[in-house]
Amino acid sequence: MNTPVRVESPFDRITSLLADDMAEVNTLIRDRMASRHAPRIPEVTAHLVEAGGKRLRPLLTLAAARLCGYDGNHHIRLAATVEFIHTATLLHDDVIDESARRRGRPTANLLWDNKSSVLVGDYLFARSFQLMVETGSLRVLDILSNAAAVIAEGEVLQLTAAASLATTEAVYMQVVRGKTAALFAAATEIGGVIAGAPDAHVAALRDYGDALGVSFQITDDLLDYGGISASLGKNTGDDFRERKMSLPVIRAVAAADADERAFWLRVIEKGAQSDGDLERARAIMSRRGSLESTRETAVAHAARARAALAPLPDSALKTHLAHLADFVVARIV
Amino acid sequence: MNTPVRVESPFDRITSLLADDMAEVNTLIRDRMASRHAPRIPEVTAHLVEAGGKRLRPLLTLAAARLCGYDGNHHIRLAATVEFIHTATLLHDDVIDESARRRGRPTANLLWDNKSSVLVGDYLFARSFQLMVETGSLRVLDILSNAAAVIAEGEVLQLTAAASLATTEAVYMQVVRGKTAALFAAATEIGGVIAGAPDAHVAALRDYGDALGVSFQITDDLLDYGGISASLGKNTGDDFRERKMSLPVIRAVAAADADERAFWLRVIEKGAQSDGDLERARAIMSRRGSLESTRETAVAHAARARAALAPLPDSALKTHLAHLADFVVARIV
Repeated sequence: MNTPVRVESPFDRITSLLADDMAEVNTLIRDRMASRHAPRIPEVTAHLVEAGGKRLRPLLTLAAARLCGYDGNHHIRLAATVEFIHTATLLHDDVIDESARRRGRPTANLLWDNKSSVLVGDYLFARSFQLMVETGSLRVLDILSNAAAVIAEGEVLQLTAAASLATTEAVYMQVVRGKTAALFAAATEIGGVIAGAPDAHVAALRDYGDALGVSFQITDDLLDYGGISASLGKNTGDDFRERKMSLPVIRAVAAADADERAFWLRVIEKGAQSDGDLERARAIMSRRGSLESTRETAVAHAARARAALAPLPDSALKTHLAHLADFVVARIV
Repeated sequence: MNTPVRVESPFDRITSLLADDMAEVNTLIRDRMASRHAPRIPEVTAHLVEAGGKRLRPLLTLAAARLCGYDGNHHIRLAATVEFIHTATLLHDDVIDESARRRGRPTANLLWDNKSSVLVGDYLFARSFQLMVETGSLRVLDILSNAAAVIAEGEVLQLTAAASLATTEAVYMQVVRGKTAALFAAATEIGGVIAGAPDAHVAALRDYGDALGVSFQITDDLLDYGGISASLGKNTGDDFRERKMSLPVIRAVAAADADERAFWLRVIEKGAQSDGDLERARAIMSRRGSLESTRETAVAHAARARAALAPLPDSALKTHLAHLADFVVARIV
């Protein structure tokens, strides 16, 4: 009998293995998102928390805890904590300022006004804070408070680094750690900590989360220029319009000749962009090899993620987490 | 010999008594505000943290801890925590949205753009979180995480309650707790907790902070309409322009005749304000006695603050804290 074979991604496999845990996480999220006094809150968060989200970060916390043999229920709280922090960060990232609007960024797609985004984000941060305190683990609180500082610092750094051709790869990496890797690393580390895993295993989980997060973000930044394929495709160009100094740009600028440098000065530093500039940026990157070298860097971090898992005991979850690292960079076409 | 007598406020007296502690708090604040990676952060916060601030909230934490005989140094960290939370809240409150701008609120006085306000506020929240974790007190973390949730909830509630004549005094009180009293109450409570004070003393300190905060905010709201004196004076009318349903308005609306109700509908619900409306609002409030009754409510909460101190051991600090409650409402002229 020939039945069509559906190829499951490692993400789907982990989600299946942890389906019961994730159902509890979802219930807890809905419960804690509610506000007796301010009904606006679930209105604002529903479209973020309920809908599209793949729940990658809470899944990492659940997987890390289970991989270390945890059989309590604090990992549910910590997974919800991580998702709330992520959602709050998205809400605060939605806030736009005058200068952004002046640069022609669309505002029509804003579901909520700035003020609601800020205050509801603050509410989710506070809720995540309550959840982690409930676990009673000072070590978890220490990890998450440090992650929160790295996240906020990275976001501010991204703001100040934008539109500056002088931005280095070191600054870019700091931004990547802040916007993505710090929460990935904390998500996996606290899973190990709450399970009472030995230090070497906790460190391995942290390294895995960090490498996975870096690889994930670099891949995202590459996809924003259409990846390494011939065309730009859908959902591209946001970083270019926001004049972000992402890795493909940094490397193209480093290799630029005089003409190209004048181009980057105009579109990134001066922000004087017009039709065709995104395509030209991509053509320059392609010629200078910065798309391909960015892909190689993402792949290298994925390999680092896989390697980090070595000290951990073998299991189906461990195998799926290793494949997840490849899956993250496999998005590049 | 006749030397001129300078009348010191209770606030000044407490500040003098705790000058050494406060110097340590200031050093810690400067230290933790710095960011190795994002120099924009101290730029944004300096004008808030360094300058005008009276440091009332951290002073309450220091006073509560010392009043309970504390001789460790965690109260310094907690005082800085409280100031960081307050400053972060101010930064997030600065964020304005499209509709606010459309209502003619001035934007020229904005020192920083929306995005910087949000992200630097997040950084200060993260720093405050790290500081409180350093004290290693789960009870303190529990108190502050609950306060953070009440603060955020109150801010969202204020947003949704604005411009609605249906806003009740109960909703107003919830907003007041969120924007002011929750942090005052947490500030005094954690001072008692870190000192290891008996439960009755900790509860007394919490009640004191709550009542002081409520009194403080109601007084502020009354002063925004010029207090009970004959003229509006300086720095008034912000709440009116933002169509906030503060206590004087709520009570004037409750007592309104048909003409007055039409007025409130126009200026608060529809937001159609023009020259002379603020003066007319004030005249209606004066006639309906809502300014005077608001003052009485503020005074009643100040009395509640003084009474709350009763279980605590007598000391100079306790006397000054009792006077501070009167001082807060004495701003009303």
